[in-house]
Amino acid sequence: MRIDVKKCAAILKEQNHILILTHAHPDGDTLGCGFGLCRALLKMGKKAKVINADEIPKKYHYLYEDMPVCEFNEEYIVAVDVATENLLGGIADVYSGRINLCIDHHGTNTEFAENLLLEKTAAACEIVYKVICELGVEIDKKTADCLYTGLSTDTGCFRYASATAETYYIAARLMEFGADNGYINRVMFETKTKTYVRLERLALESMNLYCNDEVAVITVTQKMYEESGSNEQETEALAPLTRQIEGVEIGITIREKPDGTCKASFRTFEKVNAAELAKCFNGGGHPQAAACRFDCSVEEAKKQLVEKCGEILR
Amino acid sequence: MRIDVKKCAAILKEQNHILILTHAHPDGDTLGCGFGLCRALLKMGKKAKVINADEIPKKYHYLYEDMPVCEFNEEYIVAVDVATENLLGGIADVYSGRINLCIDHHGTNTEFAENLLLEKTAAACEIVYKVICELGVEIDKKTADCLYTGLSTDTGCFRYASATAETYYIAARLMEFGADNGYINRVMFETKTKTYVRLERLALESMNLYCNDEVAVITVTQKMYEESGSNEQETEALAPLTRQIEGVEIGITIREKPDGTCKASFRTFEKVNAAELAKCFNGGGHPQAAACRFDCSVEEAKKQLVEKCGEILR
Repeated sequence: MRIDVKKCAAILKEQNHILILTHAHPDGDTLGCGFGLCRALLKMGKKAKVINADEIPKKYHYLYEDMPVCEFNEEYIVAVDVATENLLGGIADVYSGRINLCIDHHGTNTEFAENLLLEKTAAACEIVYKVICELGVEIDKKTADCLYTGLSTDTGCFRYASATAETYYIAARLMEFGADNGYINRVMFETKTKTYVRLERLALESMNLYCNDEVAVITVTQKMYEESGSNEQETEALAPLTRQIEGVEIGITIREKPDGTCKASFRTFEKVNAAELAKCFNGGGHPQAAACRFDCSVEEAKKQLVEKCGEILR
Repeated sequence: MRIDVKKCAAILKEQNHILILTHAHPDGDTLGCGFGLCRALLKMGKKAKVINADEIPKKYHYLYEDMPVCEFNEEYIVAVDVATENLLGGIADVYSGRINLCIDHHGTNTEFAENLLLEKTAAACEIVYKVICELGVEIDKKTADCLYTGLSTDTGCFRYASATAETYYIAARLMEFGADNGYINRVMFETKTKTYVRLERLALESMNLYCNDEVAVITVTQKMYEESGSNEQETEALAPLTRQIEGVEIGITIREKPDGTCKASFRTFEKVNAAELAKCFNGGGHPQAAACRFDCSVEEAKKQLVEKCGEILR
């Protein structure tokens, strides 16, 4: 059932043991939602816990490191920033069909939960912010940091057209609650590890342009991880680089998996809908940022993608 | 005399022919202030005009291209985002000692004008926004684009710690007035010309680390402009790259001038005050972004700078 912010808060008020699920290969928005909501619920005296199928990248440590661990029963299960159950990754099997509430902002949400709070905001953290306000919990500095992290990371630091007046208003409120924008954005956008700097150089060398220079493709192979000392966790920052060259409408980053299959990320501008491109290959996402998996090699995936892009741009 | 926003608006209301001066080597904030204020004054039925000593980079065309040209007498002269008269560049001689009003946000402002509206905001456009509100002019889409450009460019797209709750509030208001954040940020932050991409590669190859890897120095020579087909106008985006490597506290970009002298830009984090570093070499700026000139070669400037950084970091 579709519900609104008011109803969502009313439901959460009635629950005492709340488990929050975040999506696999976690990013700042799903983690910001998870830990932000968890902090608010704990403040209300409820038991709450966030889980994720994968290891949480170290840079997000400030979201959770001081949080108390509490024991509880899995009475009520909430998924945040999760568009489809399979995006839960390794924990999908355990929770599939049992999710009570989903708070999400993806247009591609498959409405898999009992209750659905779906709004097309720039970041899912905007919806969680409104839920917390409706819960009547005062937002403390740490919670503000969590929610700001989601806003900032999902909008490329307020850069993309997806950021609305409301996104900036909420950011302003979170600043008033003490969000440390300087620190967060430094960690999320300004800090390159030395291994990443090496990977970036290799990735940029791999970049090729296709379709009258309207498509840029970067490929990241397992060999590049070896050479640079980097790993898949660090590839997130590569995707935006693909569409920064003048005239490029579709930026593609293809990452090779250890088993030889691969994953492709898309970044586009207004002219091309990235989610629709991803859909052609059973993927999904947002109009300007989306992704999909391939059961074939990087080279084969690249061939299929360039062909499809050619069709779309014609 | 120091004045406040209210007084500033009252003064402008009494004037009919207003010339607006922007600083040399113009950036998004000085131009956003200039054209934003100019549009508001024209809307009030006044005569107004913006001038700059240098050519305005093409990417800023949307700030001014539709503006009517009006003839007028230079009755009242306003400088926006100008910290010292010599920053007016080629027009400094003509207007020095004759400036009636200065609207600025630099802590290093030398208070050279008759009336001074100085506030330590992230962008000077924040102050101009408040002046326009006080003037009672409704902000149209084009004016919103001007002011948003200043906010966004001076905060690295809302990234730096300098951005306050008020910065985000004003951005939200400007979005409501129609500011096209997607387009503006794409042009300012997401578009690299092919010549810039080549220059960036050469510049990154020139990067060296000093002082226990806490200082990163990029040098840009005239030869690099030749090789890449790029030019000095395109070097603005290089400065932030210097401090993105883990552990770097001071990022320095030294650009060689055609006459063999050079200019250095500094980017720092909280630990080091960039304006104070610049001051040691007769320059100035903000706590985290500043610049100065050298009458010597790039190599000599680099030597002096690395030595000074070593002292500061010890």
